[in-house]
Amino acid sequence: MQGLTLGILGLGTVGSGVVKIFQQNREVIEQRVGIPLHIKHIVVRDLKAKRATEVDPELLTTDPWAIVRDPDIDIIVELMGGIEPAKSLILDAVARGKPVVTANKALLAEYWEEIFSAVTRQGSDLGFEASVGGGIPIIRAIREGFVGNRLESIYGIVNGTSNYILTRMTDDGEEFRSVLGEAMAEGYAEPDPTFDIDGIDAAHKVTILAALAFGCRVPFTQVFVEGISAITPMDIGYARELGYKVKSLAIAKHQDGEIEVRVHPTLIPEANLLYGVDGVYNAITVIGDMVGANTFIGRGAGMGPSASAVIGDIIDIARNLVSGGRGRVPPAAYLPGHGVELRMKAMDEVISEYYLRFSVLDKPGVLSNISGVLGRHNISIASVIQKGRRVGETVPLVMMTHHACERDLRAALREIDQIAADVTAKTVLIRVENGA
Amino acid sequence: MQGLTLGILGLGTVGSGVVKIFQQNREVIEQRVGIPLHIKHIVVRDLKAKRATEVDPELLTTDPWAIVRDPDIDIIVELMGGIEPAKSLILDAVARGKPVVTANKALLAEYWEEIFSAVTRQGSDLGFEASVGGGIPIIRAIREGFVGNRLESIYGIVNGTSNYILTRMTDDGEEFRSVLGEAMAEGYAEPDPTFDIDGIDAAHKVTILAALAFGCRVPFTQVFVEGISAITPMDIGYARELGYKVKSLAIAKHQDGEIEVRVHPTLIPEANLLYGVDGVYNAITVIGDMVGANTFIGRGAGMGPSASAVIGDIIDIARNLVSGGRGRVPPAAYLPGHGVELRMKAMDEVISEYYLRFSVLDKPGVLSNISGVLGRHNISIASVIQKGRRVGETVPLVMMTHHACERDLRAALREIDQIAADVTAKTVLIRVENGA
Repeated sequence: MQGLTLGILGLGTVGSGVVKIFQQNREVIEQRVGIPLHIKHIVVRDLKAKRATEVDPELLTTDPWAIVRDPDIDIIVELMGGIEPAKSLILDAVARGKPVVTANKALLAEYWEEIFSAVTRQGSDLGFEASVGGGIPIIRAIREGFVGNRLESIYGIVNGTSNYILTRMTDDGEEFRSVLGEAMAEGYAEPDPTFDIDGIDAAHKVTILAALAFGCRVPFTQVFVEGISAITPMDIGYARELGYKVKSLAIAKHQDGEIEVRVHPTLIPEANLLYGVDGVYNAITVIGDMVGANTFIGRGAGMGPSASAVIGDIIDIARNLVSGGRGRVPPAAYLPGHGVELRMKAMDEVISEYYLRFSVLDKPGVLSNISGVLGRHNISIASVIQKGRRVGETVPLVMMTHHACERDLRAALREIDQIAADVTAKTVLIRVENGA
Repeated sequence: MQGLTLGILGLGTVGSGVVKIFQQNREVIEQRVGIPLHIKHIVVRDLKAKRATEVDPELLTTDPWAIVRDPDIDIIVELMGGIEPAKSLILDAVARGKPVVTANKALLAEYWEEIFSAVTRQGSDLGFEASVGGGIPIIRAIREGFVGNRLESIYGIVNGTSNYILTRMTDDGEEFRSVLGEAMAEGYAEPDPTFDIDGIDAAHKVTILAALAFGCRVPFTQVFVEGISAITPMDIGYARELGYKVKSLAIAKHQDGEIEVRVHPTLIPEANLLYGVDGVYNAITVIGDMVGANTFIGRGAGMGPSASAVIGDIIDIARNLVSGGRGRVPPAAYLPGHGVELRMKAMDEVISEYYLRFSVLDKPGVLSNISGVLGRHNISIASVIQKGRRVGETVPLVMMTHHACERDLRAALREIDQIAADVTAKTVLIRVENGA
């Protein structure tokens, strides 16, 4: 057969990785696929910029529209990131019946309906394995591997930068700000790390995972997000004493026709596999009614892993184009029109266990006052740590609660934080996941 | 569309699980797949036997050949296990152009060439996700997800029974025999546990994984296999002191045009993700040149997980039948005729680190004699534990070596075990994996 041609939009980290794989592993790909794949054009912003991978300058162009509209290009690979012009380019390619591969999690999470309804209308293919978990084949597992299961929950560590920072804070006892500064200097955090440390990137990813797993609409703007910038070495220390690590967790659960989707710092017990997932590694656990818990661990970003996922998608699509299997797997995991309506819980309705650190004056009656307020709000205490004695001064009082409703907990904390005579600073709240 | 019909051969644990999924999750499967799937017949040995899942007796039959030859059956699902008649039935189905799903690792590992060349000749599909790692979508990851990578190694815990026994020995300090007896009584080990505890089952699985990952012939009979029955609580205890757990590991590596494929008890350091994989869980790590290390963890056997994998394969094939994408992924991961010839190393040539426990008389000069022999055989010692002092009596002397060649190590041990004046029992050898 003649082979298929690719147009690649963007030659940043992932784009360079894709080019590199085609240079370095062409032989092994052809041994497995048998369909020659040619890169016809690569769109860059600056033809003269320095590249991570050596590229034939003849391939480079600055006009993405010409690529999308080139009838000789069979597959469009969008690796520019950002909303526009990526969105218009993808929609234009889709409207022309072209299959698209993208790593653009922000675009998919925020414009899910628009993108997927266009793809569905055309019956074409959309590959986005690289959008979540780098090289971890999690989208494939959900769309195909676990297709016989009712998926109950999916949760994980999906932002490598946050995990790297929390790991360093845990190992070295350093403050968030100083570790962030070092991570930026070392290239482990972006020059503007906001999306990563504020949880937005993880929220994009969990929006995609939840929509695929549960087959329902997941409005990104309703996903609860809390970043890691308020985490202190003190709380990491207490967590460790209690047998936990603090990780930024993305969580999606489905129960009784309702879903909850959230991203926040979370205490994870030593017995959970995610406890040991440190540094830039990502880990995602999927729980299905038949398969039970499956955990996938790998590098969540970077040139090699993300490019590996993009190549997997390109080859899937190439196989479909050759065999006639176009649209054989519904891009959004569920068939068009067969998605379900599931109500998304507000964060107030979520049930969780909690780690609480109160800053209280060390004087008689304080513990009783605080536990009294918690009790009146239906929050029962699982354990208490109170250390050091500095009568009349502020000391930390740490509590772990049993399951409680977030609304009740917040009401209790509002009340507690107003006991000005006892409580000297805002109470720290970190959610706890003890489940499977 | 009219839908597709299935003929299921075997209604044991996995077969019952498949029937159960179709009963319980039909709705969610149709939301994702849109192709009605009907079980037309299920072959059982005894029509009157008691079943784990309630089945319409009209579906049952005792003649597998009638099912394979029924022109109205689109997909054959072989879940009988064993070599014959499974092999002849599968080959007959394949010769009729029927796609087959099987969980039969023994058959695939031992008759790889015969099965795959028949499938390849027909250009048909063979699904065998359930043959390795239960519900873990590892075959899919290798054949499709990591298709852009040169795979360097694949290793893991692939036998749940062995892992359960070693975990119990580690946690409770019990002897192998007594834990095995309890595991058999509790149903965690088969009435005849030989295949599991002797490593044969793991060898079948790693043969399949290696052949898929490296695209070469992996003669099952040349896979090195060592079971767990010689592992003692004493060695587990020393390993723990050194920061390791003892796991039965299946290992396949590819380097410089040669492969090594082996199954044996292995010391795994705390930093490795597999260290924490206990009980009946399986874990498989794949290392690719681009994607790096990816680890998959889940239940490696049982009704739900294995049936989940079988359903995934059935739906893959159904999608291919409907879309015309028959044979879109080469069943053996590489295209027919594009596999490579890689020499398989004998165990003697393997390079590893080693845990050694000598039983020696506690008298001057013993350590020097032993380390002298090791030195002459190019084996350098990384650490030594010698505990207790019972002058003139037998004491354990534990050593960890640096990387050494198995041939040298065995020659050294032969020599050491003959120093009758110092060494009172055969030396215990357990291999160590410190790598990624």
